[in-house]
Amino acid sequence: MSISASISEHADRVRANAPLVHCITNYVTVESCANALLAAGASPIMSDEPDDVEDITSICSALVLNIGTLNKQTVAGMKAAGAKAAELGHPIVLDPVGAGASKLRTATACELLDTLPVSIVRGNMSEIKALAGSAATTQGVDVNPADAVSEDSDIAEAAAFARAFAAKTGCVVAITGPIDIVADAKKAYAVHNGTPLQGRITGSGCMLSALSGAYAACADASMLEAALAAVVHMGAAGQKAESRMQASDGTGAFRMYLMDAISLASGEDLAQTADVIEVA
Amino acid sequence: MSISASISEHADRVRANAPLVHCITNYVTVESCANALLAAGASPIMSDEPDDVEDITSICSALVLNIGTLNKQTVAGMKAAGAKAAELGHPIVLDPVGAGASKLRTATACELLDTLPVSIVRGNMSEIKALAGSAATTQGVDVNPADAVSEDSDIAEAAAFARAFAAKTGCVVAITGPIDIVADAKKAYAVHNGTPLQGRITGSGCMLSALSGAYAACADASMLEAALAAVVHMGAAGQKAESRMQASDGTGAFRMYLMDAISLASGEDLAQTADVIEVA
Amino acid sequence: MSISASISEHADRVRANAPLVHCITNYVTVESCANALLAAGASPIMSDEPDDVEDITSICSALVLNIGTLNKQTVAGMKAAGAKAAELGHPIVLDPVGAGASKLRTATACELLDTLPVSIVRGNMSEIKALAGSAATTQGVDVNPADAVSEDSDIAEAAAFARAFAAKTGCVVAITGPIDIVADAKKAYAVHNGTPLQGRITGSGCMLSALSGAYAACADASMLEAALAAVVHMGAAGQKAESRMQASDGTGAFRMYLMDAISLASGEDLAQTADVIEVA
Repeated sequence: MSISASISEHADRVRANAPLVHCITNYVTVESCANALLAAGASPIMSDEPDDVEDITSICSALVLNIGTLNKQTVAGMKAAGAKAAELGHPIVLDPVGAGASKLRTATACELLDTLPVSIVRGNMSEIKALAGSAATTQGVDVNPADAVSEDSDIAEAAAFARAFAAKTGCVVAITGPIDIVADAKKAYAVHNGTPLQGRITGSGCMLSALSGAYAACADASMLEAALAAVVHMGAAGQKAESRMQASDGTGAFRMYLMDAISLASGEDLAQTADVIEVA
Repeated sequence: MSISASISEHADRVRANAPLVHCITNYVTVESCANALLAAGASPIMSDEPDDVEDITSICSALVLNIGTLNKQTVAGMKAAGAKAAELGHPIVLDPVGAGASKLRTATACELLDTLPVSIVRGNMSEIKALAGSAATTQGVDVNPADAVSEDSDIAEAAAFARAFAAKTGCVVAITGPIDIVADAKKAYAVHNGTPLQGRITGSGCMLSALSGAYAACADASMLEAALAAVVHMGAAGQKAESRMQASDGTGAFRMYLMDAISLASGEDLAQTADVIEVA
Repeated sequence: MSISASISEHADRVRANAPLVHCITNYVTVESCANALLAAGASPIMSDEPDDVEDITSICSALVLNIGTLNKQTVAGMKAAGAKAAELGHPIVLDPVGAGASKLRTATACELLDTLPVSIVRGNMSEIKALAGSAATTQGVDVNPADAVSEDSDIAEAAAFARAFAAKTGCVVAITGPIDIVADAKKAYAVHNGTPLQGRITGSGCMLSALSGAYAACADASMLEAALAAVVHMGAAGQKAESRMQASDGTGAFRMYLMDAISLASGEDLAQTADVIEVA
C-alpha cells in the first residue's frame, strides 16, 4: 500500500472506530486536546487522580501522557495509568513537554520512557535531544532554533538521529517542527505539511500528541504509519486553516480554522495533501 | 403560567439578577463553563481549595459540583463547599461526569448525592443509571448508545425512570441526550431542542450544568422549571449555532456560534424555540 | 519621548525580544493567557510544581502570579518561583484575583506582595482596595460597582489612591475597569481604551496580567510605562474587536476577535489608538 493510501485508511479508521483515548495532559491546552480528539472522530477522557486512572485506562484504547504542567500527583497518576495500559497492551504516547527546560521534566520524561512500553514519543527536536542525553537546551516549551529541522539539507542528519533514538528506546518518534521527522528504528519519513502559524498558538503540539493516541489505537499493522498519519492530519489541517486567513484574521481565527480543518479532514483529503518523503 | 412563559421569565431573571455561581468543575471545560455563565448573564467564580471554598460559596447564590476531573483535593473542596451551601440554603447542582466509568466516580457522585441537599442532577442517561444502581455501563464520559433517549417511543419509560430517580433522591433530574428528560418526582418534561453537533465538542454538558446553577439561583417557585429553562437555553443555542454552519465550518466554528447563541438568547427567544412536552 | 512613542516602542520590543514568561496562573483562563502571550509576540511557559518552578523561572524573563484558583500546592510554587525570580532580578507581576472575596485570597495576595519584590500589581479596584486594607467588598472576581472608576470625575481620587498604594508597596499598580488607572508613587495615568464587552468574557484581566509580564520583561527604563503599554495593548485590542461585531455575533465571536486584535496590533497601531492622559 502506498503511504498516501495508508494515511487515508488510518484516518478513516479513527472516524469509524471512535477510539476512547485516556489523556493525562497539561491544564493549559487540555480543552483543545479534547476538542481535537472529538474533531478527528475519537473520544477523550481526562483523569489524573491515581485512584481513578486504572479504571479509566481499562475502558480506553490508548493512553496519552503529556508533562506540560506536571506535578507530583499527576506524575503518580501517569505511572499508575501507564502500568495498567502496559498490562492491557494499550499503546502509550508520551509528549515530553519542556524536557531539557528543567531537571524535573527531563527526569520524569526519561523515567516514563524507561519504565513504560511507550509506542510513540512526540516532541520538538530540543525535547527529543534532551531525552537522548544530547547537549541542546530547550527554550521553555519551544524548540531551540539551532535544533529545528528547517531546511531539506537538515533532513538526513535528523532522520539518522531519529532512527537511532527509536532503535534505542523501541518507540516510534515524531519530531515536529518546520519539517517533521517520523521514524522507527528502520525507517524515517520527512513531512513538509504544516504552517508556521501553528507555532503562534498554544496547543498545536499537544493536540498532535492527543491525536497520535487516537491513531495509535487504530494502528493496525504499523505504529510508524499511524504516527505518520497523525502528523499529516495536523499538518494538513494547519495548511487548510492558513488558506482561510484574511487580512482581519489573527491567531484567534487561525485557532478556530485549525479545529474546523481537523474536524472536516477525510482520509482522502489527507492522502491528497500529504507531503511525505521516505528518507533514505 | 405556560411552560414557554416560565422559561422566558427564568432566562430574563438570570440576566436581571446576574447571580454569582461557585463552580468546582473539571479543568477540561472550565473556561467554557465560565464563559457560558457570563454569556447567560450570570457571573462565575471557580475555587476548589478546601480552605477557600466556604468563603467563596458564602458570597455566591448557587454551587455547581462537576466531577469530570475529580481528585482528592477537589472532592474535599466539594464536600466543604457543599456543606456550607446546604447551611445557607443555596441550590446545589451535581454533574456526575463519568459515573459508571470508574468506581471512584460512581462512589463520589453517590456520596455527594447522599450527603448534600442537591437540587439538580444533570447528566447523560448512562451516568444517571449508574447513580441509580442500574446495570448500564458508561462509555467514558459519553452515553452508552443503548441508554440514550433517541426516539419518541423511549420517552415514557425514560420519564418514569427519571421521576422515580427524582422521588428517591429528592432532586430534579435533567437527563440530556438526543431527547432530554427533565423531571421531579411528580412531573416530567421531554425536550426536543438541541443538535447532535453539541456532542462533537467537549463541554456541552458541563456548560449546561453550569447554566443550571445560574437558573437554580433564580428558581423562584419551581426548581423543575428552572432546570427545564436551562436545558432549553442550551438546546436552543445549539440549534441557533447549527443554523449558522456553512460548508467550510467545522467544530471550531460551531463552538463559537454556540457561545454566541447562549449570549444572544433572550427569554422571548427561548420561549419561541422551546420544544417541550409534558410526559403523561 | 511622548507617551505614545513609549507605548509603541514597548510593544515592538515585546515582538522583537519574544520574552519567555513563566506563569503560575489559574486553570480557568490559562489557555487564553498562553495564547495572549503568543499573540503579543512573547512565549509562555506554565509550571506550578514547587520542584519544577525554580528551573523554569531561571530560563524566563518575567514571572506572573495569578491567584484565581489558588491552592496550597500552587501557592507553594508561587513562593518558590518568586524567591528565585527575586534572586535573579526578574520582574514579577501579581494578579490578586478575588482578593477581598475570601480570607485566603486576601491573605495570600498580601503575603506575596509583602515578601516578594513585585514590579506590577494588576487588578480591579475592589481587589486593590482589599490589598490596601480598605473596606470595599469584592464581588466574587468582579469589581464592586461602587468601587469602579467609571466617570472622569472619579479619576483624581482614584489616581491619588493608586499613587499612595504604589508608594506604600513599591510597585507599579494597574487598576483596570471602565477607566484604567496606572500609577507608580509619583505619576498616574488614566486610560480610556477598552470596551465593556471585555467584561462579558472570562480572562480579559488575566490576559492583561500575562501581557504585563511580557511588557515588564522588556521594560527598559520605566516599569510604569511598560505597565501602561500593556494596558493600552489590551484596551486597544478590545476596541478593535468590538468594531468587528455584527448582529449575529455574541461573546464567542468577541473572544476570537479580541485574540485576533492582540495578535495584529503593532506598536504604531497602539500609539494611534492610545487614549491616555497623565493625571495631575
